[in-house]
Amino acid sequence: MSNRDMLVVLSGPSGVGKTTIGKLIEKDSRLNGLIKKVPTCTTRPPRPGEEDGKDYMFLSRAEFAVGLSEGIFLEWVEIFGNFYGTSKREVDRILKEGKIPLLIIDVRGGRYVKSLYKDDVLTIFIMPPSEEELRRRLVSRSDLTEEELSLRLGIAHEEILESSNYDYIVVNDDLGLAVNKVVDIIEKEITRRSEDDRGKDLGKDTGNL
Amino acid sequence: MSNRDMLVVLSGPSGVGKTTIGKLIEKDSRLNGLIKKVPTCTTRPPRPGEEDGKDYMFLSRAEFAVGLSEGIFLEWVEIFGNFYGTSKREVDRILKEGKIPLLIIDVRGGRYVKSLYKDDVLTIFIMPPSEEELRRRLVSRSDLTEEELSLRLGIAHEEILESSNYDYIVVNDDLGLAVNKVVDIIEKEITRRSEDDRGKDLGKDTGNL
Repeated sequence: MSNRDMLVVLSGPSGVGKTTIGKLIEKDSRLNGLIKKVPTCTTRPPRPGEEDGKDYMFLSRAEFAVGLSEGIFLEWVEIFGNFYGTSKREVDRILKEGKIPLLIIDVRGGRYVKSLYKDDVLTIFIMPPSEEELRRRLVSRSDLTEEELSLRLGIAHEEILESSNYDYIVVNDDLGLAVNKVVDIIEKEITRRSEDDRGKDLGKDTGNL
Repeated sequence: MSNRDMLVVLSGPSGVGKTTIGKLIEKDSRLNGLIKKVPTCTTRPPRPGEEDGKDYMFLSRAEFAVGLSEGIFLEWVEIFGNFYGTSKREVDRILKEGKIPLLIIDVRGGRYVKSLYKDDVLTIFIMPPSEEELRRRLVSRSDLTEEELSLRLGIAHEEILESSNYDYIVVNDDLGLAVNKVVDIIEKEITRRSEDDRGKDLGKDTGNL
């Protein structure tokens, strides 16, 4: 299995489990260490068990401001007062290693990354199994006021409306199955892309395919 | 002066005076009432003198959440905990009247609107005359902490880095001159677009131009 430059974007409403899925994909033996999650730079405080530099790189607001000034983020977004950004340098570093950066970002970031890298980006949207389940996961997560919950649900619905622009949609009903499906998709796309490249090379060699 | 479907996007860092410029363009006699500012839907509280339905439509966070759920926003963004969105319906209403919607939005929104409407969008970036002036305008505006000021400056710098993607950049040193320049640009683009259309029609008539 080989790959030319390729990026994977994983999006989905808050609470749908995309970070968990991202971690499991990275470790999946079928992908053979090819996928590397790009840690998200964020100003939000770490949750228990979160290690700096793994899923997130925790920055102060002042540090994030410097990053913005210097244009270090491929894309960035404010979500409920916290800032989140994807480091260009991290993405490039992974690409240079010959690996596939995995970006776990919102749909607006995903849209932008797609517009930059076009066909080199594979976009996968993780869908909650139902409205009730989405609400349940959001409620269970923290002590939101009714208003914050409705805003989060509003944003979740808006993201779901955008999901039709994604290359693939995977429902996260059973975590193991969802991870399996995402790995299948990535495997298939890596193979397809390397076959496309071989086709192109063949065309070059014979001069008239 | 006629116009086919055309939109104008005005962006620029916070405090650069784009809202003031937008108001003055709308009233400029040279543009003959053709330009209509799309009021921004926002959850931020009104500032003194701001009238609901003119520059802004003030929504509660719950109302904004419903809007998101229903996908009514062409683009939206969170800025320092407040939400801002452009109503699709307002844009369509202005276009149906045969007028030109003016969107005063951030660079990420501008980028997206450009990707949707392509050559029908004219994008203009309002640039502060200097770093010091930008800082002065941000400081004078409200009682920001040093950290909030640095974040606002960071975002401003990041927007300035993006300005190279805009069709035109106008420096707002003298307000009257800046408004004049923006009106010049819009006039010129309306004329160019209607000439392009006449060219196309002529091409159709003769069959081989």
